[in-house]
Order: sequence, then structure tokens, then C-alpha cells
Amino acid sequence: MYRFCYPNWMRQVKHTLSTETNGPGLYEITRSVNNWCQQQGMEEGLLTLFVQHTSASLTIQENADPDVCLDLNDFFNRIAPRTGPYRHSAEGPDDMPAHIKTALTQTQLTIPLLQGRLSLGTWQGIYVFEHRDHRHSRRVVMHLMGE
Amino acid sequence: MYRFCYPNWMRQVKHTLSTETNGPGLYEITRSVNNWCQQQGMEEGLLTLFVQHTSASLTIQENADPDVCLDLNDFFNRIAPRTGPYRHSAEGPDDMPAHIKTALTQTQLTIPLLQGRLSLGTWQGIYVFEHRDHRHSRRVVMHLMGE
Amino acid sequence: MYRFCYPNWMRQVKHTLSTETNGPGLYEITRSVNNWCQQQGMEEGLLTLFVQHTSASLTIQENADPDVCLDLNDFFNRIAPRTGPYRHSAEGPDDMPAHIKTALTQTQLTIPLLQGRLSLGTWQGIYVFEHRDHRHSRRVVMHLMGE
Repeated sequence: MYRFCYPNWMRQVKHTLSTETNGPGLYEITRSVNNWCQQQGMEEGLLTLFVQHTSASLTIQENADPDVCLDLNDFFNRIAPRTGPYRHSAEGPDDMPAHIKTALTQTQLTIPLLQGRLSLGTWQGIYVFEHRDHRHSRRVVMHLMGE
Repeated sequence: MYRFCYPNWMRQVKHTLSTETNGPGLYEITRSVNNWCQQQGMEEGLLTLFVQHTSASLTIQENADPDVCLDLNDFFNRIAPRTGPYRHSAEGPDDMPAHIKTALTQTQLTIPLLQGRLSLGTWQGIYVFEHRDHRHSRRVVMHLMGE
Repeated sequence: MYRFCYPNWMRQVKHTLSTETNGPGLYEITRSVNNWCQQQGMEEGLLTLFVQHTSASLTIQENADPDVCLDLNDFFNRIAPRTGPYRHSAEGPDDMPAHIKTALTQTQLTIPLLQGRLSLGTWQGIYVFEHRDHRHSRRVVMHLMGE
């Protein structure tokens, strides 16, 4: 007893998303991620987001009240201040705190895709969390495996 | 040279687990997760847990001494106190600390399934970490891909 | 219209990596992980690393300036000191801080494999973050799914 494998059988697709940032804070990428996923035409699968940096990170947070993102950024500034006793200072006072904030949040997020949609809760948004002062273009690898 | 694909070839299954919480703290879900995985009859695979909230999170911790969970909850209360200088306060004094604690822990966990069992270490338990005061029903999406 | 499934169609491989640690700090495992992945001969896939402990964790950090790792370890000692008001103390003063540091970092990392290579950024290294004083052998389960 066997089953023929149709072309929509399990497969992988990937893409790199670039996000322009302009100073510390949370930049929502939910719509871009969602749009790309929809275009792949999968019904069920697993999406992995991977940010290729160590001074910017990923987080899933409330996307209803924008104050939540501001308060979050403030919290991370309090917990990892620029004036800490850091050895690593050659890249500027915002760099070592950026590495700490990255360690405390996520470099990678994996989200199930159910019935063609990301299984995010009602108030969940996906964010790139920028920790450095200057403008950056941040790369997020998107990898979707499913059928 | 080709191989026929038998029905137990790579597949995906998913389910939503509801966990009732009654105030801040860690609620172990290891047994429920394990039981569901066993029922799927897979030998090798990848389990992803995704909590659909931004004021409750996931963590893997020691499940031997219950004091570890109490100390963890205390630590997160010290690091993200209710009396912080928060803009976001309309949903109560426990809400912004809840978002911070979620950012500091996990919204998602992925665990390999090996020889039909989750590859947890001897003392590792899977927990829903509730950060809010009132009773909640927390949804954890379970997605298992394997064969 | 159907497609025959060739032997290199989607598959899973896994292996357990042991890392010897000798006191708190970050131990880079990028090369070992990379080497194992290369040996599997996959073009596209998803690598999951899972550490089977609750007093050691995983993190992705800058692997250029070694001071970053020292500063990170210092930061986690400041935020989770040994002299905290902990109930759980029977396993030594370094144990409860170790659980806290684990909760604040990662037990699991998932990294896409693209064109036969892990999609790490230029400066990203994979580390086992040891939080305990004594020598340990830390197990990291590696699970690779792809084709």
C-alpha cells in the first residue's frame, strides 16, 4: 500500500526580509511576514524567522497600544544601561547594551501555519527590536516548511 | 531509482492545548504535551509550542524542587515591578510588567522528538508562565512535524 | 499528475553534541554544529539545537571580540546575583541564579539551512552558556530536517 506524492507534498521555501531601522525601538513586520506566507500557498506548515545580527533581535508583543513598545524599549534601557562597566566599548556606548538586549530577547522565532494563516493570537505582532542608534538595514531570514 | 511514499511518510499534526491559570506563576504542562505527542504515533519529529498571548509565556525549567518555580516568579517580580515608570497602565498595574516578563522569556519552544519521545533532559519540565493576576485560559498551539 | 519521491526527498537526522564546560561563561560550538550539518549533505533544511539542562543555556552572540562574551557573563551575574533571596539553595549558591539565567536566555535555537550552509550572519556564533561553577558535560541535541 503506497501513496503517490503530489507536487504539493511537503516542501520548503525561503526569503530574506530587509527592515530599515532608524534608532532603538520595535519595528513591526507582521504584515510583511504574513504577506509572504500567503503568497507561498501552503495550508499547514512551520515558519521560522531568523535575524542575522547580534545587536538587533526579534520579539512577539502586543500590537494594540503603541505605548507597550515604548515601555519595553525603556525597560531594556534601564536593565542594560550605556554606562555599565563594559570591557567592549570600541564600537560605541550603544553596542554592548545592544548585545545584552539581544541575549535577553530572541534571535529566532518559529510560528506554526494553520489553515493558511500564521497562528498568532489576536493581539500578537512580530517585531524587529533595534538596539543601536544609527540607521541599519536588518535582515530576517524567513523559512517556511509545509504543504 | 525512486522510493514509494508510504502513508507514514513525513506529515504534520496540530492541536491547541488550553491551560487554566489562576494568578502569576509557573504551570507545568509536560504531561499534557507528552500525552498528545505519544498519541500521534510518530517516531522522529519536531514539536513546536506557541503561546497565543503577550502576557503569558513559555519556559523550560527544573521540575524537581517546586521552590525553583517560586524563586523564578519572585525574580521576575523584582526585575519588572508593578511600580515601574510605565506609560501603558490602562489594563491594570500587572499588565505592562506581564509584557516585559513575556519579552524576557519565550513565546515559542521547539523540541525534537526522538524514538517517539520528547528529547527533554531528566529534570526538564515545560511550563506556561502566567504573568497576570486574574484567572485566564491560555492557549498553546502544538504543531508536530515528522514521521 | 504525480511526482516520484527520490531518496533525497525530505528527511530527518539527529545527533547529540557533548560540550565540556569548566565554570561559568560562553563556550562556542559553531564549528562543531557546522561540521555536523555539512556531513548530512542537505541543501535546504531546518536545524534545531536543544540543550537538555536547566542550569546551562544557548545563545547566539558576536564571535569577533571575546570581550563581548565576558561582558555578557558579568551582566548576568549582576542581574541574578548569588546572594539573592532564594528559597532553593540546597544545590549551592550558584544553582538558583543558573536557573534564572537559563530562563532569560534560550534552551532551544532553530536555524534555517540555506544552500548547504547555516544562515548565520557574518558575526554570529552559537554558544553554550554555562551557569554553574563545577565542570560539566552539557548535551545539545541537534535535529536537522530537510532535503
